[in-house]
Amino acid sequence: MPPQTCTACKTRPALYHRQYSGETLCKKCFAQTIEDKVRQTITRYHMLQFDDHLAVAVSGGKDSLSLLYIMAKLHKHRPRTTLTAVTVDEGIKGYRDQALQIANALCKKLNVPQHIVSFKDLYGLTLDEMIAQIRKKNNKLTACAYCGVLRRKAINIGARQIHANKIATGHTLDDETQTILMNIIRGDIVRLAKEKPITSEVHPLFVQKIKPLCEIPEKESALYAYIKKIDFQDTPCPYASEALRNDIRGMLNRMEIKHVGVKFTVQRAMERLRPAIEETAKKENFRTCIECGEPSAMDLCKACEMLHQMG
Amino acid sequence: MPPQTCTACKTRPALYHRQYSGETLCKKCFAQTIEDKVRQTITRYHMLQFDDHLAVAVSGGKDSLSLLYIMAKLHKHRPRTTLTAVTVDEGIKGYRDQALQIANALCKKLNVPQHIVSFKDLYGLTLDEMIAQIRKKNNKLTACAYCGVLRRKAINIGARQIHANKIATGHTLDDETQTILMNIIRGDIVRLAKEKPITSEVHPLFVQKIKPLCEIPEKESALYAYIKKIDFQDTPCPYASEALRNDIRGMLNRMEIKHVGVKFTVQRAMERLRPAIEETAKKENFRTCIECGEPSAMDLCKACEMLHQMG
Repeated sequence: MPPQTCTACKTRPALYHRQYSGETLCKKCFAQTIEDKVRQTITRYHMLQFDDHLAVAVSGGKDSLSLLYIMAKLHKHRPRTTLTAVTVDEGIKGYRDQALQIANALCKKLNVPQHIVSFKDLYGLTLDEMIAQIRKKNNKLTACAYCGVLRRKAINIGARQIHANKIATGHTLDDETQTILMNIIRGDIVRLAKEKPITSEVHPLFVQKIKPLCEIPEKESALYAYIKKIDFQDTPCPYASEALRNDIRGMLNRMEIKHVGVKFTVQRAMERLRPAIEETAKKENFRTCIECGEPSAMDLCKACEMLHQMG
Repeated sequence: MPPQTCTACKTRPALYHRQYSGETLCKKCFAQTIEDKVRQTITRYHMLQFDDHLAVAVSGGKDSLSLLYIMAKLHKHRPRTTLTAVTVDEGIKGYRDQALQIANALCKKLNVPQHIVSFKDLYGLTLDEMIAQIRKKNNKLTACAYCGVLRRKAINIGARQIHANKIATGHTLDDETQTILMNIIRGDIVRLAKEKPITSEVHPLFVQKIKPLCEIPEKESALYAYIKKIDFQDTPCPYASEALRNDIRGMLNRMEIKHVGVKFTVQRAMERLRPAIEETAKKENFRTCIECGEPSAMDLCKACEMLHQMG
């Protein structure tokens, strides 16, 4: 059987069948659709202004590197935008150091400056050291719970250090729909309202976050990295332990096979629901952490509270 | 090892460990907690008035028979309430006829009158005959999709025939949480807002529906039937085909093992969300079906539309 021809250019051999749209695409047209989609997402949610300084949160995984690559490409048409990669070095021996090198290599290739913030500098301990402490104390929270809180704080601080006014993260459609279902299953209405393609500014010290890949399935973000020959780290984090997210990921992927497009449906349902929920969830007031001065829902921010537990 | 003693009465041997509460209960205390819980649910959602005529929708399965048993018990303390069982005979040879006998036996035992409405009488065809027609036409909808619409309409008509002003159905906590997640995954916001423990009256021909078991896990409804020696039909319907619900049921049950109480959390999250969603979803206007005169969102109601497809 001869290879199928791309349904977009009608000339080159096809490489990918996009089930949810019916298209069958060649490498070049596929990559073009991804870049177009990201551009549409940015426009649709008013993610960027012409003179933004955008910090792209780059971990070294496929999603954040594809994001950096696409943003650098779009950047050529936005001369007054500034682009900087921000990488958090949690301090995970044999894992994060490798990712840092990979991230650094792409930054150099794309001519994007890179700013690194480390847990060690910010919090006095590497994640390895923290986990050792936590395990001694037999704490119930998973490594991901700690790392998530501390990493989000680090990215926010890192972005402020370079005077960026926006942060772009590589969250894909899959991350978004998993998070939606996780928040429903956990009954966390406030988070359900808060997690959106572009965050509302609730505190002057919070740098606004955007998710330009939020309408790109994870599978396609990986394929984009592969087509663009982007080298990325694909070994999982040694501490990875999000049981609930893993369950939901598996369920959504099985669902997507049987009911094509289900992830988009969940996302759109949430888009329609969110305005109503936001009204209910708006009661959250942000103040300033008495210890570190960062924005916090409580007197002591979650990150400082966690660091106390370790000390 | 001697059998554990009931944590409630502290005398009888325990039979059931309720993980989400930590109780370990004997038969008698377990049954008492179920009846107490149903009473609390009825009070909490203002499900019953002192002079209601309640139609209990009884299929012959464990949930609806446990419900009938409990409602008959509560009825003794509510002398001005009228209780009637309403059973829909869809016409499924070798399945529903058996369930009808089982349902009838319990009604007689409890001294509750039973009213039967049949698809054949209402729609001119049994479900067996309908499915034969549908399969000929290679229709995409599942048997459950047809049967669900037609059964809901039949129960509503049946309740009106006996002048009942409320319908109680045997939906358990499991049914409710599955439906919540199904509606989110399908992106059906209107249904998400509508499916609640007590329906809002949106049309004078809709008999108000209540779900007294909505806070009882399915497993406990089954155990209640077993303890009370209620004979029920436990073979699945030969047409059962709800792929999405089955996936979600499996996922929620696996989740419940790892994260005890997750079904209650989903239900409570929905309780908190619903008022906000209802505002958004309120735009649905009910009129009257031009063919059968029953309430309908369209000119032709879903049931009549389905019957047309078969004709």
